[in-house]
Amino acid sequence: MKDPVYKLIELTGTSTTSVEDAVDKAIKRAHKTVKNLSWFQVIETRGNISKGTVHHWQVTIKVGFGVED
Amino acid sequence: MKDPVYKLIELTGTSTTSVEDAVDKAIKRAHKTVKNLSWFQVIETRGNISKGTVHHWQVTIKVGFGVED
Amino acid sequence: MKDPVYKLIELTGTSTTSVEDAVDKAIKRAHKTVKNLSWFQVIETRGNISKGTVHHWQVTIKVGFGVED
Amino acid sequence: MKDPVYKLIELTGTSTTSVEDAVDKAIKRAHKTVKNLSWFQVIETRGNISKGTVHHWQVTIKVGFGVED
Amino acid sequence: MKDPVYKLIELTGTSTTSVEDAVDKAIKRAHKTVKNLSWFQVIETRGNISKGTVHHWQVTIKVGFGVED
Amino acid sequence: MKDPVYKLIELTGTSTTSVEDAVDKAIKRAHKTVKNLSWFQVIETRGNISKGTVHHWQVTIKVGFGVED
Amino acid sequence: MKDPVYKLIELTGTSTTSVEDAVDKAIKRAHKTVKNLSWFQVIETRGNISKGTVHHWQVTIKVGFGVED
Amino acid sequence: MKDPVYKLIELTGTSTTSVEDAVDKAIKRAHKTVKNLSWFQVIETRGNISKGTVHHWQVTIKVGFGVED
Amino acid sequence: MKDPVYKLIELTGTSTTSVEDAVDKAIKRAHKTVKNLSWFQVIETRGNISKGTVHHWQVTIKVGFGVED
Amino acid sequence: MKDPVYKLIELTGTSTTSVEDAVDKAIKRAHKTVKNLSWFQVIETRGNISKGTVHHWQVTIKVGFGVED
Amino acid sequence: MKDPVYKLIELTGTSTTSVEDAVDKAIKRAHKTVKNLSWFQVIETRGNISKGTVHHWQVTIKVGFGVED
Amino acid sequence: MKDPVYKLIELTGTSTTSVEDAVDKAIKRAHKTVKNLSWFQVIETRGNISKGTVHHWQVTIKVGFGVED
Repeated sequence: MKDPVYKLIELTGTSTTSVEDAVDKAIKRAHKTVKNLSWFQVIETRGNISKGTVHHWQVTIKVGFGVED
Repeated sequence: MKDPVYKLIELTGTSTTSVEDAVDKAIKRAHKTVKNLSWFQVIETRGNISKGTVHHWQVTIKVGFGVED
Repeated sequence: MKDPVYKLIELTGTSTTSVEDAVDKAIKRAHKTVKNLSWFQVIETRGNISKGTVHHWQVTIKVGFGVED
Repeated sequence: MKDPVYKLIELTGTSTTSVEDAVDKAIKRAHKTVKNLSWFQVIETRGNISKGTVHHWQVTIKVGFGVED
Repeated sequence: MKDPVYKLIELTGTSTTSVEDAVDKAIKRAHKTVKNLSWFQVIETRGNISKGTVHHWQVTIKVGFGVED
Repeated sequence: MKDPVYKLIELTGTSTTSVEDAVDKAIKRAHKTVKNLSWFQVIETRGNISKGTVHHWQVTIKVGFGVED
Repeated sequence: MKDPVYKLIELTGTSTTSVEDAVDKAIKRAHKTVKNLSWFQVIETRGNISKGTVHHWQVTIKVGFGVED
Repeated sequence: MKDPVYKLIELTGTSTTSVEDAVDKAIKRAHKTVKNLSWFQVIETRGNISKGTVHHWQVTIKVGFGVED
Repeated sequence: MKDPVYKLIELTGTSTTSVEDAVDKAIKRAHKTVKNLSWFQVIETRGNISKGTVHHWQVTIKVGFGVED
Repeated sequence: MKDPVYKLIELTGTSTTSVEDAVDKAIKRAHKTVKNLSWFQVIETRGNISKGTVHHWQVTIKVGFGVED
Repeated sequence: MKDPVYKLIELTGTSTTSVEDAVDKAIKRAHKTVKNLSWFQVIETRGNISKGTVHHWQVTIKVGFGVED
Repeated sequence: MKDPVYKLIELTGTSTTSVEDAVDKAIKRAHKTVKNLSWFQVIETRGNISKGTVHHWQVTIKVGFGVED
């Protein structure tokens, strides 16, 4: 069996509703160009505020995927 | 154009339901006295437990807002 | 009044739906063997990905509880 | 029951005798203007030195207190 | 001699030219309301970009000042 | 000679008087069930406040001890 | 399918030869009492020195394993 | 309105004159291939030394930009 | 003389034998597409466990390389 | 007026009684060879344990002092 | 070819004008006694304030240099 | 019995073969001038790359040793 090598990229997903939705959106977008996304890790959770309510949740994640030989 | 200066304050919001609701409550409360809240950053997520379930989510955030001249 | 001593254990809860549900599951499981769980702190939020969507949220928490004399 | 919101402020207390006394002095001073201080967390412990002995312990803490509705 | 107590506030200064200018602007603004600012510490250096050049340097600092008795 | 293996557990000791006493109390309690405690490391120092004075120092430590073969 | 819950324990393995051997020894020892160890993460690498050479590598790891229902 | 997704890349800019110039050079270079760079964050500031003076400032930044749909 | 700009990418190499071999494998793989790799930095060392022994060392590194003009 | 330059050295003081005493001992020892010690910062607090009580507090500090021209 | 060994020392340079000048001053001073300084890394940027403007930038750096055989 | 005081110095060892060898080389070199080295802690692991393979492992350690009275 081979020893796999993975690449990690960093993305910020945004959502007006939740942390989970922001992460989902980042992963869905990355999946358009990289099919074998394998895991993610939340790096930072921020957001902007408009009129005293959260406008966009901004969640930065690292996403790992195997690089083919 | 002027170079704005921002102040950051630190708040802990609490909620019996979710991380997002705890953040919302902290921001809503701050909005009562500061109208131009601009962004936030999650610093820490904790909670207390009662009878084996989360009683209160306690989410500490930094909130930034422009200070007028 | 006595000065209590607490023990902290580290758990990773998983959920297909949300960060909150992953934490709940870890706490519920710990409650089966330790009745007086008192507080928790989120240490890390990760997850695995399957076909471009989050498969499992994996949330690592520290949970504190009083140790009896 | 309501979900409380807390504010955190950062203070540096100083003392010629001990870490504990420096923290006490910071909290006593804050108590003059904010009555419902609830908890603190030590952020950093420093000090200045005079003639080869500690002159002032300088202990920086975050102090949390509930903000009324 | 008394043991002084200090308060720390967090500010983000901005500047189109340099890190130093962003810090200066934050301190000058704070000086309008607090006269005895004593020291600062750089917490984070960020910026926004417009057409491939830095538009605003955004430098977040903690500023300490003695609180009177 | 054998290569020892150690286990680390995390405890929060509390005390109304000092950081040192809070650590002592955590270690004394652990010693009731584990005899060969070997070293500790302070992880976090917090406390709760009552009427403007520290009520309980809460010091979280990691404690290491050799696990027998 | 069920959502698994994992427990993490912290161990320090030691070895006179290498980082890898120290980790192996910690994991082998833990395997005596917990059969389904799943992953580890290196937390800290230290060692003691005797006569100008490394005597023991001391590698602290967190080890995760599934807790049964 | 859509929820944007951003990608973050990490670059080290160098300059014989200043931190600001090192950041500018990294951003200018990235702008050649990515037009909509949006923000940056300084990660680390290092440099090499030649004959007792700074030869190159080496400033590592994360740069974020929106990824199109 | 020109001021070089570097790009950093993050990779996880894996190996059944050692930390060094895991790093080597990540760098060898990256070298297939980027010829002028210049330096690396170890970010995290993890691994998975099978039957009480390390199955794969998983070492995450940042790798830097000069970007041509 | 000249711009002073400071050197920082790292020391671990030990004491059977308290954190403060361990710091004092480290500073007193350093004062034997460096007269103008100016400030210190606590880096880490550890200790060894003997028969269920703290044997030595081990407090690591950075100490700064001006270097003469 | 030999494998070099480097020593790192920590210095705080100060300047009334800029971060870069503070670093330069620390390196120039170190160069008086150590000729082969090789690289530096910025650890912390602080300063003191006088009458609402920065009086001294205080930049702490680690400086590395090869130790001869 | 006396309370010992320790000094910590920071070194970067290098090796073409392994992390362990780089640490050994740093400690051996320090042992030439300081005989009672007592312990070390790995701070950072980096390396430079030549033609797609690790040229030098560069491991930065802190080394502690007792200072005589």
